[in-house]
Amino acid sequence: MSAQIRIGIAGYGNLGRGVESAVATNPDMTLVGVFTRRDPATVTPQLPGTRVFGWDALAGHEDEVDVLILCGGSKSDLPEQGPELAARFNTVDSFDTHARIPEYHAAVDAPARAAGRTALISTGWDPGLFSINRVYGEAILPVGETYTFWGRGVSQGHSDAVRRVPGVAAAVQYTLPSADAIAEVRSGTRPTLTTRQKHVRECFVVLAEGADADVVRKSIVTMPDYFDEYDTAVHFVDADVLARDHAGMPHGGFVIRSGDTGGGNRQVVEYSLNLGSNPEFTASVLTAYARAVHRMNAAGQIGAQTVYDVAPGLLSPKSAAQLRAELL
Amino acid sequence: MSAQIRIGIAGYGNLGRGVESAVATNPDMTLVGVFTRRDPATVTPQLPGTRVFGWDALAGHEDEVDVLILCGGSKSDLPEQGPELAARFNTVDSFDTHARIPEYHAAVDAPARAAGRTALISTGWDPGLFSINRVYGEAILPVGETYTFWGRGVSQGHSDAVRRVPGVAAAVQYTLPSADAIAEVRSGTRPTLTTRQKHVRECFVVLAEGADADVVRKSIVTMPDYFDEYDTAVHFVDADVLARDHAGMPHGGFVIRSGDTGGGNRQVVEYSLNLGSNPEFTASVLTAYARAVHRMNAAGQIGAQTVYDVAPGLLSPKSAAQLRAELL
Repeated sequence: MSAQIRIGIAGYGNLGRGVESAVATNPDMTLVGVFTRRDPATVTPQLPGTRVFGWDALAGHEDEVDVLILCGGSKSDLPEQGPELAARFNTVDSFDTHARIPEYHAAVDAPARAAGRTALISTGWDPGLFSINRVYGEAILPVGETYTFWGRGVSQGHSDAVRRVPGVAAAVQYTLPSADAIAEVRSGTRPTLTTRQKHVRECFVVLAEGADADVVRKSIVTMPDYFDEYDTAVHFVDADVLARDHAGMPHGGFVIRSGDTGGGNRQVVEYSLNLGSNPEFTASVLTAYARAVHRMNAAGQIGAQTVYDVAPGLLSPKSAAQLRAELL
Repeated sequence: MSAQIRIGIAGYGNLGRGVESAVATNPDMTLVGVFTRRDPATVTPQLPGTRVFGWDALAGHEDEVDVLILCGGSKSDLPEQGPELAARFNTVDSFDTHARIPEYHAAVDAPARAAGRTALISTGWDPGLFSINRVYGEAILPVGETYTFWGRGVSQGHSDAVRRVPGVAAAVQYTLPSADAIAEVRSGTRPTLTTRQKHVRECFVVLAEGADADVVRKSIVTMPDYFDEYDTAVHFVDADVLARDHAGMPHGGFVIRSGDTGGGNRQVVEYSLNLGSNPEFTASVLTAYARAVHRMNAAGQIGAQTVYDVAPGLLSPKSAAQLRAELL
């Protein structure tokens, strides 16, 4: 095998720490270091060997980093960093504002192409692995419907909304697929379901001193937009239980394609994720795609790319011949 | 959109009929016709507009067929036809003898490459979609195990074995994933399981006149190699029930990747198929890959290819920009 793939991490939150761990489990990769906008002296890396650099040190590392994995957020970090860094590095990011992907793709494509760089945008699991399954499903079963369900996972926006309710000291909100809706979709009947019909909500709430549980529950379940049209369960727990059982970042979901072929035969394709840690799994996807980006750039496939442009074999450290012999 | 993709079908059994139906559901494709080794005058096509040609008529259709879908069997048809036809057409096939794939790849690659043709081998669902999921799973979660389960589906070899038991007038045997084994794998514990531990067997048997059910049952469940090490259920039914309920060709299965990331977080990725008709679904996969082959050949990607070499977006009739906007 050729020299190791040299990875850089731009941004060091949960996602960046996940990439740091993931690189360590891929023997064909080596971590150049973490680039942070904080004062590097204040950042203690998760793994002892990890070097921490300031953001400005990205300048000067262009020739030492084969692929830079951008671990900033989609709201304000990536729209600025993505186009700028794609002019200087091969990049991978998890830009996940679905409605703005075409605009972001264009903004990254021009500088990457001009510089001969490859920039894989919007990977992870949704957008990412779920998107791939939506395309395979629709292409293989053109007569059918695709259903995406999310959860069980923490919704940050909904957790924040619960925390703003008077009488709530702390709270975590989970979005769950509706078991009834999934069963209906799996049966192959192709029901028409809204996002609201497909999901239910579950809140774990620590009451503030003297707060009335019934009043708090009613305030939550009737909250417009957030909860009023969903089935919502509210569980009151004490602060210790919340800290012990609800500090993790599980997530997951389902993509189901249900279609008919020929003589009305029902065909159901289901892809599902059950994730102990959402950021660590997303980071693992980004890391595997970094390998593909390195190869695509070497093969002259430059500009902005998405998971739709990446042949599956490029993600694996194994050679094409090895994949054919061992996994096909 | 450009001109329609002109598809030919070589071999007209269950799989060929499935491709005929699948092409009809893809508006960007048109069927040139079916090529059969039987006397074409004796073959009645499933759809009224389908033209039926003799095998010799393949010569002379090279310029009228963009992609020829090979619908012969892996045992004797494809090893001969694959290399020969890849020298004259772009092809797609479902060669599924896993152990001989490297040899078949080499046999098809040389003539296809010499002729500037693209030959996608070994697609369908296993090898095919399951293979893709094995690679994605292993690349994304390098610390983990992959589990493939097959069924519920008819096993031809095991059905034949049951039919040879004295006292059996007719029979169908299904292979099923073991519910216990799937539950254990889904839990993320990563058990070590043999193929035998992962599957159970179910037989529907019509007794011959005067046969003793207990004797027949015992002969089946103790049959060496086929049944003795499996949990096997034997159900006796009458001939009408067998014809009514067990004449279909359902199949399916699961690919589960179970791995750990970072701080020991468990991540489980599951892909499953629940197929009303195995040949029709396989045919739908081959047909979608014919679109990819047409594009790959136009882009100069020649020689033998596998599903690992095909970027997901190439399977869709939608443009890359449309995929990014609608499905990413």
